Amino acid sequence: MRIAVLGTGGVGQAIAGRLAELGHDVTVGTRDPEATRNRPEWQDAQVAVDSFANAAAAAELVVNAAGGTVTLDVLEQAGAANLDGKVLLDISNPLDFSGGFPPTLFVKDDDSLAETIQREHPGARVVKTLNTLTNALMIHPESLGEESTVFVSGDDPRAKETVVGLLEQLGHTDVIDLGDLSTARGVEMWLPLWLRIMGALGTPSFNLKIVREG
Amino acid sequence: MRIAVLGTGGVGQAIAGRLAELGHDVTVGTRDPEATRNRPEWQDAQVAVDSFANAAAAAELVVNAAGGTVTLDVLEQAGAANLDGKVLLDISNPLDFSGGFPPTLFVKDDDSLAETIQREHPGARVVKTLNTLTNALMIHPESLGEESTVFVSGDDPRAKETVVGLLEQLGHTDVIDLGDLSTARGVEMWLPLWLRIMGALGTPSFNLKIVREG
Repeated sequence: MRIAVLGTGGVGQAIAGRLAELGHDVTVGTRDPEATRNRPEWQDAQVAVDSFANAAAAAELVVNAAGGTVTLDVLEQAGAANLDGKVLLDISNPLDFSGGFPPTLFVKDDDSLAETIQREHPGARVVKTLNTLTNALMIHPESLGEESTVFVSGDDPRAKETVVGLLEQLGHTDVIDLGDLSTARGVEMWLPLWLRIMGALGTPSFNLKIVREG
Repeated sequence: MRIAVLGTGGVGQAIAGRLAELGHDVTVGTRDPEATRNRPEWQDAQVAVDSFANAAAAAELVVNAAGGTVTLDVLEQAGAANLDGKVLLDISNPLDFSGGFPPTLFVKDDDSLAETIQREHPGARVVKTLNTLTNALMIHPESLGEESTVFVSGDDPRAKETVVGLLEQLGHTDVIDLGDLSTARGVEMWLPLWLRIMGALGTPSFNLKIVREG
């Protein structure tokens, strides 16, 4: 699949690299393609690097791997027309570090960042997923040595199917479809607990598994 | 141990009954002891029933099993003097159903219901726990057929030790100490995701397990 990954931080690097490894045609979208291409972590990456708009324009599926606070700006630069009709796989978390650590959430409870994105880009088919675990486990969940759970939230069933297919390629064997995009409020509000579990365990290398009866 | 369980709803019934079964001396605190004693679900319960204040006064450890919206009122009726120096095991969730389902949280993010309780009752040794799973699994986690996780949050290490001891008696074999009471923000903000997982699975009979690397 032709995939644009918007964002060059830890999430973008992990997702772009692994999707390319899996045989997808990946272009990373960034503010300054020249500068990104010259950074050591992108020298050997088997991905193209381009502007947010060019990356999104050429893609069948767009991954938002930008940080929560810059997400709306990044998607505006990508351009509504370039997102129209496309699956927008949103991994961002609305973390506000302005008050220090632990961060608070700048949108929550009766709204979510995923829904905000959907309102600003009504033509995009937003699916929230993978924001509930650390980069390394997004792309190699099997490294935990035990099955764990990820979620999808979205209003478009076919877009969710496409995303579930990608999740399966990444090795996720337990994917719970939470329902419409408002359920993204739940996965975004998981972050405060995730951060405190990380603090208690001293590592981000964990994931939740939903253990069901019987 | 002499334990007061404040609240006669599903959580109170489950916890009070199971702690009595385990050999504890349990008194249920309620607004109207006469009325509670006459209700079918309490006829055969092997627990005493008394006012909030009397139950708390006689107890070594107090369980807050009241609903979130009535918690502060219930604890006021229990009386600050009757909570002084005692472990206060808080299971409540700050769920606001006034806008329908799913509920929002009436305190969150930069504060929690557990911290509110602690501020109003500085003499109590508040430990937040067990608010992350359904009643039946609080008292019989083994019924899932697989280990799952619960958490403790609190400012008093010895109070947390006491609570962890009770959790072990209830069958909880994986208890993560998240740290001080501010970490209760994390477990209270888990509820929105818990509710949506319940919606997706069609049952509250699940719990999260924190799967760690290797």
